[in-house]
Amino acid sequence: MTPAFERLQQQLKQLPGVGFRSAERMALHLLVGKPGAIPVLVAALEEAARSVRRCVRCGNLAEGETCALCADERRDQAVVCVVENVPDLVALERSAAYRGVYHVLHGKLSPIHGVGPGDLNFASLLARAQAGEVKELILALSNDVEGEATCHYLTEHLPAGGGIKVTRIGFGLPSGGGVLYADSVTLKSALEARRDYA
Amino acid sequence: MTPAFERLQQQLKQLPGVGFRSAERMALHLLVGKPGAIPVLVAALEEAARSVRRCVRCGNLAEGETCALCADERRDQAVVCVVENVPDLVALERSAAYRGVYHVLHGKLSPIHGVGPGDLNFASLLARAQAGEVKELILALSNDVEGEATCHYLTEHLPAGGGIKVTRIGFGLPSGGGVLYADSVTLKSALEARRDYA
Repeated sequence: MTPAFERLQQQLKQLPGVGFRSAERMALHLLVGKPGAIPVLVAALEEAARSVRRCVRCGNLAEGETCALCADERRDQAVVCVVENVPDLVALERSAAYRGVYHVLHGKLSPIHGVGPGDLNFASLLARAQAGEVKELILALSNDVEGEATCHYLTEHLPAGGGIKVTRIGFGLPSGGGVLYADSVTLKSALEARRDYA
Repeated sequence: MTPAFERLQQQLKQLPGVGFRSAERMALHLLVGKPGAIPVLVAALEEAARSVRRCVRCGNLAEGETCALCADERRDQAVVCVVENVPDLVALERSAAYRGVYHVLHGKLSPIHGVGPGDLNFASLLARAQAGEVKELILALSNDVEGEATCHYLTEHLPAGGGIKVTRIGFGLPSGGGVLYADSVTLKSALEARRDYA
């Protein structure tokens, strides 16, 4: 195909889940299958790049100062779930199991990769805690070394005597998955998280 | 998420092979995962929309007057493979089994859908044939009713006594697929296309 076609294909291939063949199919669709699709897609990309920013309160995607969740009065604004990134927030929202609000760190502490507390969305979380608006903080970070280190750092820096209840999201067997198919780390955490039953 | 995010997701979902979840993942990647990706993608889309056009000779994608295949002197310019659309041409090129050139009709005759000869890239094919530059015409259209009707129309309109050999691409069992898995239409065409063996 032509050089401009190949450059477009190359850029489409950068999208998650898109390989060489899918990118070729997409570029053909845009250039041959559906003339007029490119200006519409470009407009949507540019509008999103222009208007979507971070919520000043929680770090979620927002179009105004704060995001739709922070502005929603039907949600419990005193229960704050700390997540690593926006896709994690989206996954939790999809479950429809949570009615509090969030705080997105946009990463986790990782000295090896040079990520320190200053690189994360920490300061505004501590500000929220100090302002006394938080009753419970649910740490929904993963239980790898970096996630645990981030949880540890966070609890150490919360205001002393602030009366904030700190909880950790549960770890164990995923629903629908049996013991047979679980990896050893999951089984270890599932055993540690066992509860009285009868 | 935000309205602009959802409009972007909606546009990404229009791409072939992209569902609701993949579109969400792509939009998150563009807006959160990789800042700076949007201007690069927009530039590639706009450059492709601006510079990619149809080859005046064969209808393939081109950046100049004619496409890279029509300009390639190592290819047999007297053997012309007639295909329905550009993805068909791309699939044939991928096979590396063909060293002639192409003619892209950009559709096939379909009275039900209101597609007549005037809507297809017919006139320039007849002009190529009349100019005496074609020795063999390989009809690589599908063998459904519309493909067959298009082949029939085409052969009827070729210049009489022009000495052009007209062939039809072979139909039969796909390589690697056995009789067991083939549909009845394929089996019918495979039986019709049987050849002397020993």
